[in-house]
Amino acid sequence: MKLALFQIDPVIGDIKGNKEKIINGYRRAVEDKADLAIFPELILLGYPPLDLVEKKEFRDAVNAAANEIAAQTNSVGLLFGSLTEEDDLIGTNLFNSALLCYDGKIQFVQHKTLIPNYDVFDEMRYFESARDVFVHDFKGEKLGISICEDIWNDKDFWKKRLYSNDPVERLLDKKATFLINISASPYSYGKRQARLEMLSTLTKKDKIGLAYVCNVGAQTDLIFDGASMCFDNGGNLIQLGKSFSEDYLLYDTKEQYPPIIQVERSFEEEIHDALIYGLKEYCEKLNFERVLIGLSGGLDSAIVTYLAVQALGKEYVHVVMLPSKYSSKGSVKDSEKLIANLGITSNKISIQSVVNKTLEMLHPIFGNFPEDITEENLQSRTRGLLLMALSNKFKYLLLSTGNKSEMAVGYATLYGDMCGGLAVIADVYKTDLYRIANFINRNEEIIPDEILTKVPSAELRPNQTDQDSLPPYALLDKILQMYLEENKEIDEISRVLGERDDVNKVLHLVDRNEFKRKQAAPALRVSNKAFGYGRRFPIVQGWRK
Amino acid sequence: MKLALFQIDPVIGDIKGNKEKIINGYRRAVEDKADLAIFPELILLGYPPLDLVEKKEFRDAVNAAANEIAAQTNSVGLLFGSLTEEDDLIGTNLFNSALLCYDGKIQFVQHKTLIPNYDVFDEMRYFESARDVFVHDFKGEKLGISICEDIWNDKDFWKKRLYSNDPVERLLDKKATFLINISASPYSYGKRQARLEMLSTLTKKDKIGLAYVCNVGAQTDLIFDGASMCFDNGGNLIQLGKSFSEDYLLYDTKEQYPPIIQVERSFEEEIHDALIYGLKEYCEKLNFERVLIGLSGGLDSAIVTYLAVQALGKEYVHVVMLPSKYSSKGSVKDSEKLIANLGITSNKISIQSVVNKTLEMLHPIFGNFPEDITEENLQSRTRGLLLMALSNKFKYLLLSTGNKSEMAVGYATLYGDMCGGLAVIADVYKTDLYRIANFINRNEEIIPDEILTKVPSAELRPNQTDQDSLPPYALLDKILQMYLEENKEIDEISRVLGERDDVNKVLHLVDRNEFKRKQAAPALRVSNKAFGYGRRFPIVQGWRK
Repeated sequence: MKLALFQIDPVIGDIKGNKEKIINGYRRAVEDKADLAIFPELILLGYPPLDLVEKKEFRDAVNAAANEIAAQTNSVGLLFGSLTEEDDLIGTNLFNSALLCYDGKIQFVQHKTLIPNYDVFDEMRYFESARDVFVHDFKGEKLGISICEDIWNDKDFWKKRLYSNDPVERLLDKKATFLINISASPYSYGKRQARLEMLSTLTKKDKIGLAYVCNVGAQTDLIFDGASMCFDNGGNLIQLGKSFSEDYLLYDTKEQYPPIIQVERSFEEEIHDALIYGLKEYCEKLNFERVLIGLSGGLDSAIVTYLAVQALGKEYVHVVMLPSKYSSKGSVKDSEKLIANLGITSNKISIQSVVNKTLEMLHPIFGNFPEDITEENLQSRTRGLLLMALSNKFKYLLLSTGNKSEMAVGYATLYGDMCGGLAVIADVYKTDLYRIANFINRNEEIIPDEILTKVPSAELRPNQTDQDSLPPYALLDKILQMYLEENKEIDEISRVLGERDDVNKVLHLVDRNEFKRKQAAPALRVSNKAFGYGRRFPIVQGWRK
Repeated sequence: MKLALFQIDPVIGDIKGNKEKIINGYRRAVEDKADLAIFPELILLGYPPLDLVEKKEFRDAVNAAANEIAAQTNSVGLLFGSLTEEDDLIGTNLFNSALLCYDGKIQFVQHKTLIPNYDVFDEMRYFESARDVFVHDFKGEKLGISICEDIWNDKDFWKKRLYSNDPVERLLDKKATFLINISASPYSYGKRQARLEMLSTLTKKDKIGLAYVCNVGAQTDLIFDGASMCFDNGGNLIQLGKSFSEDYLLYDTKEQYPPIIQVERSFEEEIHDALIYGLKEYCEKLNFERVLIGLSGGLDSAIVTYLAVQALGKEYVHVVMLPSKYSSKGSVKDSEKLIANLGITSNKISIQSVVNKTLEMLHPIFGNFPEDITEENLQSRTRGLLLMALSNKFKYLLLSTGNKSEMAVGYATLYGDMCGGLAVIADVYKTDLYRIANFINRNEEIIPDEILTKVPSAELRPNQTDQDSLPPYALLDKILQMYLEENKEIDEISRVLGERDDVNKVLHLVDRNEFKRKQAAPALRVSNKAFGYGRRFPIVQGWRK
């Protein structure tokens, strides 16, 4: 059987646009004499559709579009993900389904069995679980069709399983001769390799071929990397879709293919590519042509500026330097070097006179109260004020430049440097940003060396450095990694890293700054535990008293 | 059997504090010669504990505390909600459970069967469902114990059910002689009446008594109103806990009680009480003594100021008037009248010179570009800048004052009037705020008449009124109510209300402004569909093209 795999990028809720992509793809598959065209999970809706599925008019539009798609088919099969409804008085009645169409009709529907409801997944909010799975006879194969999570519960692969049921095992019991899994699998670092290992083990063990078809694209904070895969019945990877790009793969199950020796990319390269893709997609899907960045002279804004140039082109990136009386000479000079290296346009506005005027207006109330964090935040917020004015006037999307280490401990000013529509690097630790900067500079100096070698500082008071308030980033990031990504607590973290006082302080800061993160811009997710939707903590709480 | 019902207010994650509340309550029940002391759902953790339950150290602390509590018991029973774990290799292994303790031990555990996962509820993220339910013989009764959602699935009461299973029916099959339900049920308007009707119908139909024990308190945006209830086996309400306050009820199942004729409060009074309680709780639990409000002379900030005075006392509320060149004379005069009526302290800072200075700094870039929304937002953001400086300097909690109508359509400035730690009235429509203002003024003029009668305006440009940009609030709020709370779409809303162009415009605005609400302060929830956690829509989407 000749399969055509469509690794495409939907727009959530754009049923008409997504439908056209499916139909156009199908026509191409027919031209290429494929037997079956395969599209990803929920591709007609986009993933995740969230509460849109609770709207009856939305569901009606989806179902109408699904029927229109089916009506376009001839004897070539078309398999795609959509939602279906069953008339029943119990539960949501909604299913996340794979629809197999040919000869003008939806001929077979397989609902998803395993409904993920952890981290960024909320599918149990919307979808009921399939009551059973079935194979479908099509052109000489017994197709065993499953949807994303369905294939992630193999009892031989996982020591700890999330579900008691294994729909793939049941498809094999029902004598499936070929497996198809349609997915919408969000990217995090190392995910492609994890998928590959699991699926290779499974196809080898069960001696069955598999076509694994993923969506691609970014949906606000969630990035879908694509990397669709085909395996032969010996567990060999024989087709591999591009990462961070739409792709189209043809695979004839009757032909022999040489196994693909996958080239693993470095951590730096993978994150680098993911962030550029996520930023590009956000701008494209929201019709932002141009972005704006406040350039401080530090590493974070330098990297975000570089990523924006990669994502949009240098003509579409504008930066502003906003020095104050505490800014070092280097800050402006280093920024200017970066601007020259990247060939972008810039402005410089001193914030000092606005800060002074504001303090003058506050003086009757502040009186002789000593300077404190107020005056520091005021500088950051004045920058936010100016950046947002430029963003409004010239329709720039303002990018926020905070990193994960800062966002974790609240080393950021709400309504100040946290201003922006998208937080590009807020899921990347400071120490990892240095690695990424070195990757960026691998062939030539793009990010000036001075930026990489100077001591990190917010420059909000004389001679300030980040390490006045925080442990060294090398330690901080290790603490954060164990706390956020591995869900360890103080005893275990201190046992491994020592420095119990620092650990205690950091964990307190993380918990206490939940209120700031609740008002943060969405952050491109590249780790397995990003701030935002996938990490849910109360603002008001007393766990770590 | 003599029951002691503890309607108490936990702090999420404060296991030590919550444990002490339970033990102290139990001692009081023993003194009062009760047979059984009953505490609400998950009371040892606080509700909702969210991802805290994913921390092993947290769970270990919970379990240790549960055992300590049990160890304190004598022959008087103690029933309370906590989490329990089962050793298993499948699923989360966690249960939301009711623990019945006496004679120094946990004697009986009933897990929750029906796990809510809609609107603000995410329990399937954490908890597995009970495999079965059991009655427990205690002091001559066969207790049928259930947890919150478990009692909300009666097939005779609901036309449409969320679950196929009815644990209460099964408890009755197992010959329960008395029902106990422990709950954590978030408030929304009319909720108490809804609970009462359902529980009265159920106890009457099944001819069985019921003790329904709720938590109380506010947890950031979620308000728990309490109002625990006891019913006799004829469906009569015979005990009713206070709303928005801790309470303690004694109920002897062997005694006769006169039915309580419940006095229904008006919509205005109920919302009024809920908001005051939510604000008070937020400040207390975060140790904010004092709040700050920017007083515009309009209705929203006036109501928030009044609510703050009710919640905290007039000594703890400070307001700032921030007029610009577009502010009407009335704005300051009306604010001053309100300040005098409430007896609070205030400052006045003209924003004009900061705005002018900022525009001067931007002039080299703005050049002769015409004035637009930029200059309007700049005024609002300058107010935010000044308010946040005061908040930082004097440790005030800044309250944001946007209403639901504005937040819905994005008629608010990000980092401007949206600044603040808590959005007090962001779940109340503008037209409802007028009703609440009249309720506030029922005995004397507190909110000046001028504020109630003037045409709403943001006063960001000459002669501006809200209705320049939006349909009249009477129409806008009806559209929003149907769209947000009833999940209707354009065809149906237009059919009912007419004005298809307005409806279309409003629905577009709601969808397009998701990005603003993602960065909004948490909003006290008083409707059945508030912005925030319980309403999840993508920022990037193409449904309403």
